[in-house]
Amino acid sequence: MSVRKPVRVSRKEQKVATRARLLDAARACFRDRDERDVSIQEIAAHAGTSVGSVYVHFTSREEMIAGVVSDIHSELLERMRDALAGQTERDLAEAVKGLSHHYLGILRGLRPYLPLLAIHSARTVSVDVLRVGGATAPLVQMLNATLASLAVTTRIRGDVGLLSAGLASLWRGAAISAWSRPATDEALVADALADMTLALLERVAPGALEADAILMFRAMAQFLKTPASSSRSSPG
Amino acid sequence: MSVRKPVRVSRKEQKVATRARLLDAARACFRDRDERDVSIQEIAAHAGTSVGSVYVHFTSREEMIAGVVSDIHSELLERMRDALAGQTERDLAEAVKGLSHHYLGILRGLRPYLPLLAIHSARTVSVDVLRVGGATAPLVQMLNATLASLAVTTRIRGDVGLLSAGLASLWRGAAISAWSRPATDEALVADALADMTLALLERVAPGALEADAILMFRAMAQFLKTPASSSRSSPG
Repeated sequence: MSVRKPVRVSRKEQKVATRARLLDAARACFRDRDERDVSIQEIAAHAGTSVGSVYVHFTSREEMIAGVVSDIHSELLERMRDALAGQTERDLAEAVKGLSHHYLGILRGLRPYLPLLAIHSARTVSVDVLRVGGATAPLVQMLNATLASLAVTTRIRGDVGLLSAGLASLWRGAAISAWSRPATDEALVADALADMTLALLERVAPGALEADAILMFRAMAQFLKTPASSSRSSPG
Repeated sequence: MSVRKPVRVSRKEQKVATRARLLDAARACFRDRDERDVSIQEIAAHAGTSVGSVYVHFTSREEMIAGVVSDIHSELLERMRDALAGQTERDLAEAVKGLSHHYLGILRGLRPYLPLLAIHSARTVSVDVLRVGGATAPLVQMLNATLASLAVTTRIRGDVGLLSAGLASLWRGAAISAWSRPATDEALVADALADMTLALLERVAPGALEADAILMFRAMAQFLKTPASSSRSSPG
């Protein structure tokens, strides 16, 4: 019979827990609202802590917002990965259609946070692309890797980086378009998105549509499995 | 012989001039910088006026930024309109290629302000699309009108609104991709952009490529001629 030790929460564990609570509170406050209308006071109150405590965990308001965005983004990637990994259709045209429906469904779930994601990604694009160089969004990287692997067996017309950027924008654009329509249109948008994707794919990678969708989507899921740097794990 | 009247500047004219000077100063300050790093103090100093004067002309920092963005956007639209109106190639495939080169050239000229445009358009998308509904960007509206007119003579597969959103995103995505590359790649990006556009057009509007490019581009230029509400003309 073992003697149960009293539960001891270390300072470090406490710190991680408070940080997570603050991120959750911020996320709740950002739901359906313009991020600029949310004060640090409100977030601190929601988390049951003080404004001072916010600045123990985040060097700035921006850093806290980045943490919330990173959490939402990880969720989006995880659900995309599950959709890709769970895919059982061999025919690429059908599989792309299935994926576009999945994608819009995932975005529907995150809809209250999409303004926050859009603004943050515009900032990231500005800063990263214009100053540091290179598209760093995981979905673009995944498309890049997929097209590069397609290039082994099919003839790719043009530049893999550009095609990836083009496809990623197309999906983003369709999503924006879907938000402005009644929810009942979602299936229509998903079909159109798949159709446009296939048109581009046929043009830029002739023969690509003969690829085995299960193998291809599995490789894409594998790519997204690379753990994104989680905002939760670095409390300092 | 006429007697020259002394030049009298009315209060209203003065007000318009100060507002324009503030907008120009703000624009100069935003060049190549993160908008958040620019203070109202700095803008006022640059315009040779006081912080108080800024708030005579703009109700908020955001309103001033919106004015700058509106000016830059009008410039972009005007140059696009000139490129469309000055087009002499009848063959649509060639004409689209010419336009994509023009487009990237226009963006190159506005490059120091592209982060500002990207962030502002993300905010506008968020607010307009998610809360008010409907894509209001003039370029999307122009594409909408063009595709709708194509639908009269060709068979459009799918939804005109979605195609416009898809095409607009594709062009935006290619531009972002171009920024992350050396300037020497611009021609390559423009060619790829034209190629992807034609692939989509062939798929969604079979027969569209037989349209007379001069007539089509002229109609598009006409569409952009509708004067955008200028921030200069409403000083208060």
